[in-house]
Amino acid sequence: MTGFLSDNVSGIHPEIMDALRKENSGYRKPYGNDEQSARLDVAFSELFDTEVVVLPCATGTAANSLALSLMAGPINSICVHEKSHVYIDECNAPEFFCGGARLSPLPGANGKIAETSLAKVIGVIGDVHAPQPSAISITQTTEVGTVYSIAEIEAISGFARSHDFKVHMDGARFANAVATLDCHPADLTWRAGIDALSFGATKNGCMAAEAVVLFDKTLIETAHHRQKRAGQLLSKQRFLATQLLAYLHDDLWLRNARHANHKISELAEMLGSIEGVELPVQIESNMIFAKFTAGQNAKLEKAGLAGYLFDSGEMRICCSWATTDDDIQQFVRCIKDDHT
Amino acid sequence: MTGFLSDNVSGIHPEIMDALRKENSGYRKPYGNDEQSARLDVAFSELFDTEVVVLPCATGTAANSLALSLMAGPINSICVHEKSHVYIDECNAPEFFCGGARLSPLPGANGKIAETSLAKVIGVIGDVHAPQPSAISITQTTEVGTVYSIAEIEAISGFARSHDFKVHMDGARFANAVATLDCHPADLTWRAGIDALSFGATKNGCMAAEAVVLFDKTLIETAHHRQKRAGQLLSKQRFLATQLLAYLHDDLWLRNARHANHKISELAEMLGSIEGVELPVQIESNMIFAKFTAGQNAKLEKAGLAGYLFDSGEMRICCSWATTDDDIQQFVRCIKDDHT
Amino acid sequence: MTGFLSDNVSGIHPEIMDALRKENSGYRKPYGNDEQSARLDVAFSELFDTEVVVLPCATGTAANSLALSLMAGPINSICVHEKSHVYIDECNAPEFFCGGARLSPLPGANGKIAETSLAKVIGVIGDVHAPQPSAISITQTTEVGTVYSIAEIEAISGFARSHDFKVHMDGARFANAVATLDCHPADLTWRAGIDALSFGATKNGCMAAEAVVLFDKTLIETAHHRQKRAGQLLSKQRFLATQLLAYLHDDLWLRNARHANHKISELAEMLGSIEGVELPVQIESNMIFAKFTAGQNAKLEKAGLAGYLFDSGEMRICCSWATTDDDIQQFVRCIKDDHT
Amino acid sequence: MTGFLSDNVSGIHPEIMDALRKENSGYRKPYGNDEQSARLDVAFSELFDTEVVVLPCATGTAANSLALSLMAGPINSICVHEKSHVYIDECNAPEFFCGGARLSPLPGANGKIAETSLAKVIGVIGDVHAPQPSAISITQTTEVGTVYSIAEIEAISGFARSHDFKVHMDGARFANAVATLDCHPADLTWRAGIDALSFGATKNGCMAAEAVVLFDKTLIETAHHRQKRAGQLLSKQRFLATQLLAYLHDDLWLRNARHANHKISELAEMLGSIEGVELPVQIESNMIFAKFTAGQNAKLEKAGLAGYLFDSGEMRICCSWATTDDDIQQFVRCIKDDHT
Repeated sequence: MTGFLSDNVSGIHPEIMDALRKENSGYRKPYGNDEQSARLDVAFSELFDTEVVVLPCATGTAANSLALSLMAGPINSICVHEKSHVYIDECNAPEFFCGGARLSPLPGANGKIAETSLAKVIGVIGDVHAPQPSAISITQTTEVGTVYSIAEIEAISGFARSHDFKVHMDGARFANAVATLDCHPADLTWRAGIDALSFGATKNGCMAAEAVVLFDKTLIETAHHRQKRAGQLLSKQRFLATQLLAYLHDDLWLRNARHANHKISELAEMLGSIEGVELPVQIESNMIFAKFTAGQNAKLEKAGLAGYLFDSGEMRICCSWATTDDDIQQFVRCIKDDHT
Repeated sequence: MTGFLSDNVSGIHPEIMDALRKENSGYRKPYGNDEQSARLDVAFSELFDTEVVVLPCATGTAANSLALSLMAGPINSICVHEKSHVYIDECNAPEFFCGGARLSPLPGANGKIAETSLAKVIGVIGDVHAPQPSAISITQTTEVGTVYSIAEIEAISGFARSHDFKVHMDGARFANAVATLDCHPADLTWRAGIDALSFGATKNGCMAAEAVVLFDKTLIETAHHRQKRAGQLLSKQRFLATQLLAYLHDDLWLRNARHANHKISELAEMLGSIEGVELPVQIESNMIFAKFTAGQNAKLEKAGLAGYLFDSGEMRICCSWATTDDDIQQFVRCIKDDHT
Repeated sequence: MTGFLSDNVSGIHPEIMDALRKENSGYRKPYGNDEQSARLDVAFSELFDTEVVVLPCATGTAANSLALSLMAGPINSICVHEKSHVYIDECNAPEFFCGGARLSPLPGANGKIAETSLAKVIGVIGDVHAPQPSAISITQTTEVGTVYSIAEIEAISGFARSHDFKVHMDGARFANAVATLDCHPADLTWRAGIDALSFGATKNGCMAAEAVVLFDKTLIETAHHRQKRAGQLLSKQRFLATQLLAYLHDDLWLRNARHANHKISELAEMLGSIEGVELPVQIESNMIFAKFTAGQNAKLEKAGLAGYLFDSGEMRICCSWATTDDDIQQFVRCIKDDHT
Repeated sequence: MTGFLSDNVSGIHPEIMDALRKENSGYRKPYGNDEQSARLDVAFSELFDTEVVVLPCATGTAANSLALSLMAGPINSICVHEKSHVYIDECNAPEFFCGGARLSPLPGANGKIAETSLAKVIGVIGDVHAPQPSAISITQTTEVGTVYSIAEIEAISGFARSHDFKVHMDGARFANAVATLDCHPADLTWRAGIDALSFGATKNGCMAAEAVVLFDKTLIETAHHRQKRAGQLLSKQRFLATQLLAYLHDDLWLRNARHANHKISELAEMLGSIEGVELPVQIESNMIFAKFTAGQNAKLEKAGLAGYLFDSGEMRICCSWATTDDDIQQFVRCIKDDHT
C-alpha cells in the first residue's frame, strides 16, 4: 500500500529515530522524572512564547480526552462539531475521561462550528434539567482539511469567555494549520483564546507522541493524576519526551508540515488537468477531498492508492512528511491510465 | 544515577531497537491493520500454546485496567492484594476503566493473597447491598519479589471458578517468574486457570509495550472498543507490535529475565558477606528487599545507587536486562566503603 | 397557581393516599422484603399478561436511566429522539447510569424517531472507532403529545431486533397513550417488541413512584444491584410498592389517564371557538401545543394559568387526573376576557 | 414480624402522615419550585443556627453518595471506617456518584476511624501514582451504635483541615446521637468542622426522606445538577419537603430519637437480669449489640423478633420511634420463656 490513506500511514522521521537512538543508553528515572521530560515544559513554553504545562500522551484520543476532562465534568456538555474526531472517531473516550459529560454535536460549514449553532446552546445555562455547557472543542486543521482563521478562533473563544466556557483545540494536524497560515503558534492558540491544545506529533513524524499543552493554569490542578489514572504516564517517558523534543528541534514539526502541505498542492495541480476529477476550490492543509469517476476510484482501490471514500462520493487524499515525488507520480499515473 | 531503583530505569534492548529501525520504512495501514499487528495473535498463541487474543497497550496501568474492565463492571468488586500495584500505584485507573468497580484489598504474606482472606469475600454474594465479587487479580512476580507457585495459582483459580469469578494476572514481571520457575508460560497462566494476563514488556527491554493476553474468549466481546475508548489503540500500532514481536523473537523476553534474575543473585551473594546487610532468605526474581545500615543507606543515596526505601527500613533493589557487572561492582564498593 | 403547567403539578390521588394510610401500621421488613413489594411482580405480570420483573424507582429520570443502563454500556450509543426527555431534561443521568454511553440524537416529525434517521446509525456497526449502537429509546406518549401507533413501534423494534439492539420505552405518560389507543398494555409493549418500559405513575396520581418493567429476562442480571447502587432501593419500599399497587388497583391508572385525556379535549373544544387561538389538528393524549395571541399569553401568565411557552410560540397545556371543570372554565374565561 | 430488626421497619409517624394529607390539595410547581421546598433551606438554617443549603433525597445511599461526590472526584480517595455503611452496604454507590473515587477502609475501635489510621493516609499526598485523599466520612451514630463525642469529631476535622480534606457525616441516625449527647445540632456538625451532613429522617419517622445539608458553601456549585443527574430531584418534591418540615416541626426528630433511645435502654435493663444475655457496657443510641444463648437466638428467630446476627455471635437490636411497651414486653417474654 502507499501513503495517501492518511498521514498516519507514514513511519518515524529519521531525525526522531536518531534522537531515540541517542537517548537509548544508561539509566533514567522513570515516570517523567528524567532529564528529557524535564525539558518538555521549557521547550513548549519557548515554542508558544508563554509558560505552559505539557502532558505527553501516547495517542491523540487520549490527549483530546484528557484535555477535555480538565474542562468538563459529569454535569457538563462540550460543544463540538458534528463531524469532529472527538465526536465521530473516539468511541466515547471523551465521555469516558470526562466522567459522562455530553458532547453536543453542532453543525457548521467547512468542518467549523457555526456561531449560530453555539448561540442556541446557551439557552440551557442555569437549567437544572440540562447538562451545563462548559467547553468548546474545535479542530485545527479541521476534519475536512480546512483551517480556522485567527479571527474565527477569536470569535469562538470570545463567545466562550463571555459564558465562562473553556476552549480546547484538537491539533492533531496543528502543524499543517500553522504552515498554511504562516503565523506564530501562539497566535493560533493562547493569544486567540485557546485554553488547552492537543498538539499532534504522531501523524507528522513521531512514532507515538502527542502533547496536551495547557495554557490556562487553572486546568493543571488534577491534570497529572488524571494522566496517570488514564494509563498515559509512561514508565520510560524519556522516550516519549525525546520524540517530542526532536519534533520541536530545529522546527522539524513545521518543516514536515510544510512538506506535506506542499505535496498535496503539487498533487492537486497535476490532478487538475485530468478529466473527471473534481477538486476543492481551495487547499488549506495536507489533505483534499476530491471526486473521481467510478473508474478512477476502482483503479485507485486496486492499486492500493485510495483514500477514505465517503458517502458523498468524495475521497479524502492525504500527504504526509514522508510523501515523495514518486508517490505522487504513481497516484497521477494510476488515475490517468486509460488501459487498466 | 544507576540502575537499581527499578527495572524500568533501563532503556530499549538493542534487538528491539533494531527491529524498530527495520520496520521504519514505507507505509502501513493505521490502527492495527498492519502486518506486524496481524502477527501478534499468532505469535502469542504460539508462545502460550493456545489460541489467544492480544490487546497491545502503551503502559502497564492501562493493560491491567483494560483487562480488569473485561471482568468487573460497576456493581462488582475485584479481590486484590493490599500491596498490589493495581491497588497502590495506579491512581484509581482500575476503578476508572471498570466504571466504578471496587478493588477489595486483601492481606496475605509474601505479597500473595491469602486463601483465608478470599474465603471471607464470598459472604456477600447475592447481597443486594454489597458490590458483587467477580474477579481476582494476582501479581506474578509479586510486588515484593516473590513468585506464586503453579499450585498456588491453581488454588486461587479453583476458588475463583467455583464462585464464577475470573482471574487476572498482572504480569509486569511475568518473564522473571517464568525464568525462576523454569516452566512453560502456559503452565503459569491458562493451564493454571488464568483468564487474562497483562504480559509486561516495558520493564524487560521494550520502550513502551505491554500486551493484554486474553485466554478466555468470553472476554473479547467489548475488548477492542474498550481499548480504543481508553486511548490505547495507537495509530502507528505497527511499532508497538514490532516491539512485542522482537521481544518474543528468539526468546528475548526470557533471556532478558534470566539475566536480570541472575544479576540480582550475584549482587546478593556479594552483599551477603558485608556486615550490616540483611538479605531475604530466598531470591525468587529480579529484585530483593534488603536492609542496610543507616550509614549504608546514606552512601547509596549519595551515590545515586539507592532503591526505594520503605517504612519498614527495607530497600528494594532491582536488576534488569541491562544490569552490568560494573553496575554490581559499583554497588558493592559503595556499601563496603568505610571511609565515605 | 393552577394546573395546566404540567401533569406533575397535581397531588396524590385519594385512592393512593388511602392505600398509604392503610399500609401505615405495624412493622415490615425493609428494602423490598415486605409483602407489598412482593406483590409488585405479580401485579405487573397480570397487567401485562406476561411474566415481568419490576424495579420501583422514586423518579422518572432514575427509571429511564436505570432501564437504559441494562441495555447500553460505556462503549455503546443509544438512539433517542433529539427532543426526548432523556436527551433534553435529565442532565446527563442516562450517560451517568450507563457509564458514559452516548445518546445519539435523531430527528423525526411529531416527536417520533424517523426510520430514515435510524438507518444512518448502523453504518458504524463493527467500527472500532465509533461507539456501538445497542439500544433505541422511544417516548410514549411523546414529548409533543403524540402517540406512536402499534405499527410504528413494531417498525422500530423490528429494525432494532435485526441489529441486535434492545428497545426501551419511556412511558412517563404511558397511561395516556393506552387510554388514547384503547388497547391492551401488552400490545403497546412486549408484543410490539419493547424490552423494558419506564411505567410512569407520579404524573398520573402517585406521590413519587415509577416502575421499570423488564420484559426481556436477559436484562435482569445486574438490575437489582444497579438499582441499589443508584440509591433507588428504598428502605421503606413498602410505601413505594403501595402506591404502585393502588395505582394499578381497579384500573386507577387508566381511569386517571382517561380523565386527563378527556379534559384536554373538552378544553380544546372550548378554545376552538375563541379568536386568535391555534390548536393542533389532532389531540392524542393529555396535552396540546396551542398558539395564543400575545395578549392571551400575557393574561394566562398573569393569572398563573400558563403552560410552558416554547421558542416556536406554542404553549404546552396539560391536563391531569386532577383537572376539574372549574379549572377549565377558569382557563377559558381568562382567554376570552377582553377587558384585562 | 416485629420491630427490632432495624429502625427502618417502622412506618410513617402520624404527624408526618398528617402533614402529607394537609399538603395534598391544589396544584404546585414541580421540581422543588413549590412553597414547601422553598422553606427547606430556611428551616434547616434555623435548626443549625447557620446558613445552609439542603438537597432532599429519597434514600440515605443517595444522600451519602451525593454529598461525597461534592468532596471527592475520580482521582481522589475518601477515608471511611472499614465497617461503615458507605463502604459495606451501598453497593458501590459512592464510587458511582464520585466518578470512580476510592473509599479507603480504615480500622478503628467502636466503629470510629482511629486517628492513627488516618495518619497513614497522608503519606501519599502529592504522589502521582496514588489517588489523593480529599475527604473523610464518619458515621454518627456509628454502625455499631456508638457516638462520636464532639472532641472526637473535632480531632478528625482538625486533621482534615490541616490537609485540606473535607469532612462528611453520615447522619442516618444523627437524631439519636443528638439525643444521647444532648447538645445543639450545630455543635455536632459545622461548629465541630463538618462540611456536609446526610441528615437522616426515614429511619426516624419519615416515609422516604433524607437531607444533604451543606455547611460549606464551596460544595454547592455543582450540587443541584448532580442531584438531578442522580435521579434525586423529585417532580412532586413538595411531598418530600413536607415530610422533612414536619420532621423538624416542634422537634419531632428529637422527640422520636429520644423515644427510641429510651426504649432500647428500657429493654437492656430488663434483659440485664436474664441469664445468658451479654450486654454492652454502655448504650449510646437506639441500638445495642447483645449476645444471647443459642436457644435464645432460636426463640427470637422463631418469634420473628430477631435482629441481624453477626459472625461474632452478636445480635443487633434496634428500637425506633414506633417501639411500644408491648413490643418490649414481647421481646423479654420470648427470651425468658424456658418452655419454647
